[in-house]
Parts: sequence; C-alpha cells; structure tokens
Amino acid sequence: MSKPILETFENAHPERDYIISTSIPEFTSLCPKTGRPDFGTLTIVYVPNKKCIELKSLKFYIQSFRNQGIFYERVVNQILNDLVDACQPRSMTVHGAFTPRGGISTSVEVKYP
Amino acid sequence: MSKPILETFENAHPERDYIISTSIPEFTSLCPKTGRPDFGTLTIVYVPNKKCIELKSLKFYIQSFRNQGIFYERVVNQILNDLVDACQPRSMTVHGAFTPRGGISTSVEVKYP
Amino acid sequence: MSKPILETFENAHPERDYIISTSIPEFTSLCPKTGRPDFGTLTIVYVPNKKCIELKSLKFYIQSFRNQGIFYERVVNQILNDLVDACQPRSMTVHGAFTPRGGISTSVEVKYP
Amino acid sequence: MSKPILETFENAHPERDYIISTSIPEFTSLCPKTGRPDFGTLTIVYVPNKKCIELKSLKFYIQSFRNQGIFYERVVNQILNDLVDACQPRSMTVHGAFTPRGGISTSVEVKYP
Amino acid sequence: MSKPILETFENAHPERDYIISTSIPEFTSLCPKTGRPDFGTLTIVYVPNKKCIELKSLKFYIQSFRNQGIFYERVVNQILNDLVDACQPRSMTVHGAFTPRGGISTSVEVKYP
Amino acid sequence: MSKPILETFENAHPERDYIISTSIPEFTSLCPKTGRPDFGTLTIVYVPNKKCIELKSLKFYIQSFRNQGIFYERVVNQILNDLVDACQPRSMTVHGAFTPRGGISTSVEVKYP
Amino acid sequence: MSKPILETFENAHPERDYIISTSIPEFTSLCPKTGRPDFGTLTIVYVPNKKCIELKSLKFYIQSFRNQGIFYERVVNQILNDLVDACQPRSMTVHGAFTPRGGISTSVEVKYP
Amino acid sequence: MSKPILETFENAHPERDYIISTSIPEFTSLCPKTGRPDFGTLTIVYVPNKKCIELKSLKFYIQSFRNQGIFYERVVNQILNDLVDACQPRSMTVHGAFTPRGGISTSVEVKYP
Amino acid sequence: MSKPILETFENAHPERDYIISTSIPEFTSLCPKTGRPDFGTLTIVYVPNKKCIELKSLKFYIQSFRNQGIFYERVVNQILNDLVDACQPRSMTVHGAFTPRGGISTSVEVKYP
Amino acid sequence: MSKPILETFENAHPERDYIISTSIPEFTSLCPKTGRPDFGTLTIVYVPNKKCIELKSLKFYIQSFRNQGIFYERVVNQILNDLVDACQPRSMTVHGAFTPRGGISTSVEVKYP
Repeated sequence: MSKPILETFENAHPERDYIISTSIPEFTSLCPKTGRPDFGTLTIVYVPNKKCIELKSLKFYIQSFRNQGIFYERVVNQILNDLVDACQPRSMTVHGAFTPRGGISTSVEVKYP
Repeated sequence: MSKPILETFENAHPERDYIISTSIPEFTSLCPKTGRPDFGTLTIVYVPNKKCIELKSLKFYIQSFRNQGIFYERVVNQILNDLVDACQPRSMTVHGAFTPRGGISTSVEVKYP
Repeated sequence: MSKPILETFENAHPERDYIISTSIPEFTSLCPKTGRPDFGTLTIVYVPNKKCIELKSLKFYIQSFRNQGIFYERVVNQILNDLVDACQPRSMTVHGAFTPRGGISTSVEVKYP
Repeated sequence: MSKPILETFENAHPERDYIISTSIPEFTSLCPKTGRPDFGTLTIVYVPNKKCIELKSLKFYIQSFRNQGIFYERVVNQILNDLVDACQPRSMTVHGAFTPRGGISTSVEVKYP
Repeated sequence: MSKPILETFENAHPERDYIISTSIPEFTSLCPKTGRPDFGTLTIVYVPNKKCIELKSLKFYIQSFRNQGIFYERVVNQILNDLVDACQPRSMTVHGAFTPRGGISTSVEVKYP
Repeated sequence: MSKPILETFENAHPERDYIISTSIPEFTSLCPKTGRPDFGTLTIVYVPNKKCIELKSLKFYIQSFRNQGIFYERVVNQILNDLVDACQPRSMTVHGAFTPRGGISTSVEVKYP
Repeated sequence: MSKPILETFENAHPERDYIISTSIPEFTSLCPKTGRPDFGTLTIVYVPNKKCIELKSLKFYIQSFRNQGIFYERVVNQILNDLVDACQPRSMTVHGAFTPRGGISTSVEVKYP
Repeated sequence: MSKPILETFENAHPERDYIISTSIPEFTSLCPKTGRPDFGTLTIVYVPNKKCIELKSLKFYIQSFRNQGIFYERVVNQILNDLVDACQPRSMTVHGAFTPRGGISTSVEVKYP
Repeated sequence: MSKPILETFENAHPERDYIISTSIPEFTSLCPKTGRPDFGTLTIVYVPNKKCIELKSLKFYIQSFRNQGIFYERVVNQILNDLVDACQPRSMTVHGAFTPRGGISTSVEVKYP
Repeated sequence: MSKPILETFENAHPERDYIISTSIPEFTSLCPKTGRPDFGTLTIVYVPNKKCIELKSLKFYIQSFRNQGIFYERVVNQILNDLVDACQPRSMTVHGAFTPRGGISTSVEVKYP
C-alpha cells in the first residue's frame, strides 16, 4: 500500500516562532519479527515555517502503519523524516512511547535539526 | 457580531516584574470546515507593564469566539495579538489545548515578543 | 481470515467458585462504515466451571479483530458468545470501553447468563 | 432551529439485557437568565430493547443545545425524554455534571422508568 | 446579621424522582472556641418534590456562615434543617468535609428523612 | 503514663442518626517485639447517641500511644473499646492502615456493635 | 525446597468479628511453561477466629514461591488453602493481580468458605 | 482592624543559603467590587538572611485579609512587601492561586528582589 | 539519649559521580514549644565521595529524633551537618516536608556545599 | 550462572542523536546481607552510536540478577558498565528505584560518560 500524502496548509503567522503539539495515542504497527501488533502514543512538537501539517492527512498517514512491520526506532525516525519533508519546519521533535512487552516498555525521541 | 472590548486597569506595581496566569477551560469555537464545535483550554501568562487585563471583559471577549469559525493556529495567534494590543505587556504567552478529534489532540503555544 | 481457536485448560479447582479477570487495553478493529480504526479496552471477568481460557490463544483471538469491520455493540456480544462457547463458565461479563470519536466515548457491557 | 432527529439502529442482541454507556464531555448551552454559556459532561447509560441510539445523530442532537437557553434540571430531563421516545429502552439514566459557577458546581441525574 | 432567604423555583418534573447534587468547596465559618476560621467542602444531594433550591440564593445563604462561630456537627445539621424547610424535598443528604486541624480531619453527614 | 481522658460533648441532634468521620494520618506507636516505630492512618466513623467525641481530647488520646509497644490488631480493638466506653455511640467503626514493613502492609477494621 | 511454616498467634479479640487486610506487592514466581518470572500483588483479607497469621512467617511463605513454576490460578488457590489450614479463619479472600504479559493482565480472586 | 504583627525568630544557620517553603491553602478575602468572598492558595518560598518568619504570626497575618476587600494582584504584592519588610530575606517568591470565577481561574506570582 | 552512630561503607565506584536518593516518609519529632508531635517526609540526595551512608544506621539515626524537641529549620540543617560529617559527600541536599499545622504546611531544603 | 549475552543491532540512524528510553518495573535481586529479595524499577536512557540494545536479550540479562546477592549501588553501576560495554552509546543514564525497606526507599542514578 502506498503511503497517504501528508498535506499542508500555509502558516498564517510565519513572522513569529510558535509551537504546535499533536498527541496521537492510537498508533499501532506490527512487530517485524513476530508479526504481532505493537501499540503506542506518538507526540509531535514543531515550530512551523511556511507550512503547517493538515491534521486529517496526518491521521491517515499515521494509520497507514497499521499493517506494516517496523521496529520502534525506525518508525519514529521515519515519521520525523516524512514530516520534515512535508512541511520544512524550523524545528521538530517526534516522541513514540510504546506499550510494555515482556515487562519492558520503551520510548524513542528524535529531533530535527 | 463585533468583538467585545478588552478592558484594562492600571497596574498598581509597575516597578516590579511579576506574572499573572489565567486559565480558561471553557473555550469553544466552530471548525471553519465542518461548522461543528471545537473545545479547548486557554492559558494566558503575562508580565504586565502599565496595564492589566480586566477579567470580566476577558471572559466576554473569549466567549465571543463561540459561534465563529476559526482554525486552532489562527485563534491562538489572534488572541495573543488582541491581548498584546489591549495591555502592552512586557511579555505574554498564550497556549490553547484542544480536545481530541479523530483520536488526535492538538495544542498551540504563541509567545510575545 | 478464519478465527483463531480459543484454547482452554482444565480448571484445577472446580470445587470452588472463584473469579478470573482479564484486561486487554490493546483492542482494535475497524469501523464498518468508514473503514477507519477503532480502539478500546476489553475486560473479561468470569467464574470458571470445568475449563479456563488459555491466555495466549485469547490474545490471538482478540488480535483477529484487527482488520475486521464491526460495530461496538456487536463485537462485545460476539466475544461473550465465543468465550462462553469455548469454556462454558458459571458466569461471565465482557466490557468494552472505546476511545472517543467526535467528543463522545462509548462502552458496552454484556453478561452471561 | 428545529431539533436534529435522533436516529436509531436495530439492536442485534435483543435476547439479552446489556448496558451501553456514552460519555459526552463537550456539552454546552446558555443560561436562560444571563445568556452566558454553561458547560458540562453528559453521561447516558441504558439497556436497549429493540433499538440502539446511533452515535452521530446523538452528537448532532446534543450540539443543538449550543445556543439554546435552558436550566440544568430541564435539560437533563428533556434529554432523557427525547432519548426514551427515540429508542424505547428497557431502562435509561442521564446524568449531567456542570462546571462550577460562583464556587458551586451542580449535577442532575434522571432515571427511566 | 440575619440569614439570607433560601429561594426556590418550581420543580418542572415533579412526576419523576431525580437527583440534584451540589458541591460547595468554599465553605468557611469560625470556630466558636477560638474564633479562628474553619474551612470545608459541603455536598448537598436531594430528590426535589415541588420545589428546587435556587443556586444563587444558596450561595448567599452558605456565605452567611462566614463570620459565624459554629461547631462542625451543628452547621451540617442546621443546613439540612434550613434546606428541608425551604424546599420540602423527598429526601436530602448534607455532607461537610472539613480541612485538617492538629493532624485530624473530620466530616459529618446528615440525612433527611 | 496514664491514658488521657477522652472528653465528650452533648450531641445537639440526638433525634437523628447521622455520621461523624474522623481521619488521623499521624498515628504512631512502637512494635512490641523490636521496639521500633510503627506508623499508620486511623479512621473513626460513628453514629453518635447522646455524646460526641471532643476532637482535641481525641488527638491527645491518640498521641498517648506514641511510646507504647502494641500490636496492630490490639491497638485498633483497644481504640474501639475506649471510644465506645467514652461516648456510647449507636454504631462505630475503627480502621487502622499501617505503613509497609518488609514489603507487606496491613490494615485492621473493627466494628461496634 | 520445603515450604516455610506459616506461624500464627492467638487472636486477642475472638469475641468480635473484625477484618485484617494484608497487601503484598512484591510477589514473584516462575511461569511453568517458559521458566520466565511472573510478578504480581497479593491481597489477603480475613476475619480471624482463634488464630491470626504472623506477618514475618507470611512474608517468608510468600517468598518461597520465588523460584517455583506455578500458574496464576493455582498459586492463588494454593495460598488460600495454606492460609485457611494454618489459621482456620471465619472467612478469607485471596486476590492476585499479575503484571501484563503480551498486552494482557490477569487477576484471580478466591474466597473461603 | 489593624494588621497583626509578623513576628520573626533568629535564623540559626545564616552561614548557609537554604529554602523555606510555606503553603497556605486556606486564604480568603473579599472582592472589592462585589463584596463576595474570594478563595485561594498562597505559597511563600524564601531564603532567610538573619530572620525567619514565625509561622503562628504568619497564620494570623494571613487571616487578617478575611474581611478585607482587595484585588488578586494587590494582595500578592502586598504580602510580598510585608514579608520582605518583616524578615529582610535574601530572596522571596509569593504565589497566589485563586479558585475559578465565571469559568476563569487566575494566579499571580511576585518575586523579590 | 545519645545519637546512634551513622555508619558508612566504602563507595565501590568513586571514579564516577552518581546520585543516591533516599526518601523517609516516617520522620517524627516533637515541637519544642508545645511538646506535641510533628511529622514529615525527609528526602536525602547526595553524590558520594569515598563513603556511602549505611541505610540501617540511617534509619536508627532518624528514629532518634522521635522524642526530641526541635524546630523544622534546625532539624533539617542538623541532619545535613551530621550526614556530611559522616560521609564527606561531593554534594548533598536534605529536604524536609512537614505535615500541615493550623492550615499551613512548611518544607525546608538545605544544600551542601 | 553465567550472565546472558547483551545482544545489539545496528543503529539505522547513526547520522542523528536521538534518545531511547527503557523502563523495567520488574527488577528483582537478593540482599547480600540477609538473602531476602529486593525489588525495583530500572530506567535506562541512552543516545545510541553504532549499536542499539536488543530488548529481548536485555530482558534476559536483567532477569539474571534474580538470584544474585548484590547491593543497590553496585547493581546500578554494574548494569551501566555492562550496557556501555555492549553498545558503546554516545551517552547513557541508568536509574534504579527500589521499593521501601524499614520505611526507607532508595534510588541510585549513574551516568556515562
């Protein structure tokens, strides 16, 4: 399945640095080793430049990982890369907090630039 | 409907930098795309200069967004601009945390200067 | 995809009524109208008779709803029916609490007998 | 404005008493005395008979109170009456918890039958 | 100072038993022994008969204890008596939870009938 | 050291059953085996008859256990007995929740009559 | 390894029904299938008859499961049986709440008689 | 009514910078516009120099605002000024968090020097 | 009663700065004015140099304040001094948070060096 | 018993500093003095260089302390050393928070480099 396109809209206040934070507690993908589901909460915090991420297309983009096998570290890095490509922000952080497996829970946090 | 006027009163302690924080958990406006209601909590933190925001007029000003169609990013930026115009503070932050839509919740934070 | 078989093991203490409670915060299925994912927490409470539900097969059974389109009310009723068929408990309650959609969150609770 | 119609769908499991609970934290109406907004959380708990309440129409119905002037006690009683008329449940409770005014917060709980 | 009058309004749904709960976290009076302030949260739960308590007059009534010296047990019993006199409810409970003094916190709960 | 006397005052509302609850999070005594301190929270709930417990004398009575060696079960039973002797309540419950020792925490609850 | 002996002491207040609750958040045993550790919280609530459980011997008894392979349902039933044998209580409940495995958490509750 | 005197005692450790924090959740005064009570929590954090604030006189000083009409901003600034005059600290912060009025809650934070 | 000796053991990792934090929620002493008990939670955070504090001797040392009359400010400063004397740490903070008296709660924080 | 080998996998994004956090609430070892079990939560936060820690081998490594007698300070330092040896991170912090013993709880935090 091809990735949904991340849509953007024009930042109405590019004269000013400000922070947009988005929390997505319904992330799910598959473990590439076992094929079993992983679950987690994604948090995206960024300072927009000329473009802001459109939220509905972000939802569809995030949902496209649902049946994809991918490791925790990769998924957080890839989401950062895709979002940076789409909106060229002044800065961005993506944080993924995954539910426990075998008594161990893991989170990954990646920053741009 | 014309916007209510944001009233101010004289800062009795301009000789000193101090912080006034106001939390408004009852913000509501309309989504400009769907016409459906949005809800959120606004937090306004500022260091007054010569004038402080009068709270009753602030309440009426915030309530004037009730039936206005406006995006999250715009509403937080506009409230900052209007409050800065009204009271010329030494500094101000406006933060809007909006309730989840489609499993995604968003907040916007804008600072002056 | 055919449903995974719900396995059971022999109840070692059938001489006594006792309660087994299982909480599954990682339930997900699809909305049959929109095809978009639903998420929720399932809670299963039962008094076993001759058989107990084996937890690993329960996990696989619950995961089999992942790409199935099904309404909230139906999924909770179906899980109760399937579990009752599998282990013939003295009594059982299945509760599903689903995450908010459009500012509204819903839960469904079904009891046997 | 005329009230939106509360739609229903057929209960797929009328052979069994079960509980559907719906929480709506984004209720708002107007105070009939002052014209100022009231806010609250509605909780609807019912045992369906032949019909279940369709959630999207419930959302639109609840949103129709947005610009209506109505007292706390009346709104909770009216919602119970309208929902009972629409789906003829075996039993239903409607609870409204309203945000504080003047340091006092109030809730109203109504049951059918 | 004479007590403010507890005003009532006509119960619009006397055909039905329903519950009105009011929480007042800003109660204060004086200790009759020491003259020092006491603080607490009052909770009033009742089933109205023909009359409901008007909230603004309830607020003023509660505030009238501010500079009155009165023991915990007496204040909760007196509020129950005054409210029952004013609205003749089908049933009522008044609960007062007072803040700690000397490492001890106390609450009093009185019921009618 | 002799026990402080538990003082009482006349119940001003003996015509009515009502509940007085007192929470004392600062209880401490000594372990009779090791001489080391024990800590806990006492909760006393009673329906007074002709007499209520005076709170200051209750505080001094509770503090008198500070350097006394006594087991958990005994201290809760003794406090119930002493309070019942002092005020002859219609009913009373004493609950003691003690802080963990060796990874185990214990509470004891005793009722009269 | 042989089980440590559960010691008891004489109940000083057999004339009265009262409740002793003990919480042990540091329970651990091994999964009999995988040999990997399980963890949980045990709660024991009982009304003593002539004997009370001595807490230090209870701790050693609970710790004796540390390297034993045993299923959740069995361990809770066995602890109830051993404690009932040791102290012959008027009634007893043992509840075990185990930490999540594979996104599923389970508890077991057993009662005597 | 004249203000109670803020008493101090000699700092026994002036050789060292250390922090004393005091929280007073029972502050109340009157609104100068409406005459109705305001409530809030005061937090005082300071590094003493030669003198520390005596807590009982601080309590009486804070209670002296009970029937005084004064705005939020003024009361926090005045308390800072009075405490600085009384004990000449190396530094001090006073924070007042007031309970909601009309759905809006406000706090004020003032620092010395 | 003479103070128990604070024992130490050799720091096995002096080549590295690391942090040891100890929380003691069961501190109690006496008020030197009234002779009545005070209660609080002590938190000790330090970077060891050549010696670490032995925890059992720390417990006995802390328990030795049980029947000593001492002010809040003094007890926190004295514990810092005694611990620094005993283990010569690279740095240390002692924080004491005391339970409310007369509606006011206080904490004291002292640092070395 | 020999320690399980800590496996690693190649960091797919070495061009970027990012943070991996792992929480392990099921740590247990033995007290070297008494032979009795200790329990705690380990938190590992690191910035990977060329290698990331494989989570399953981390779980087995952590479980290998189960029947080993080791002090709090030593175990946290040793885990840091072993993990640094295995994956050569850019930086790493290991924090161990241990459950209360004798009313005292302790945590240890060690950093590399």
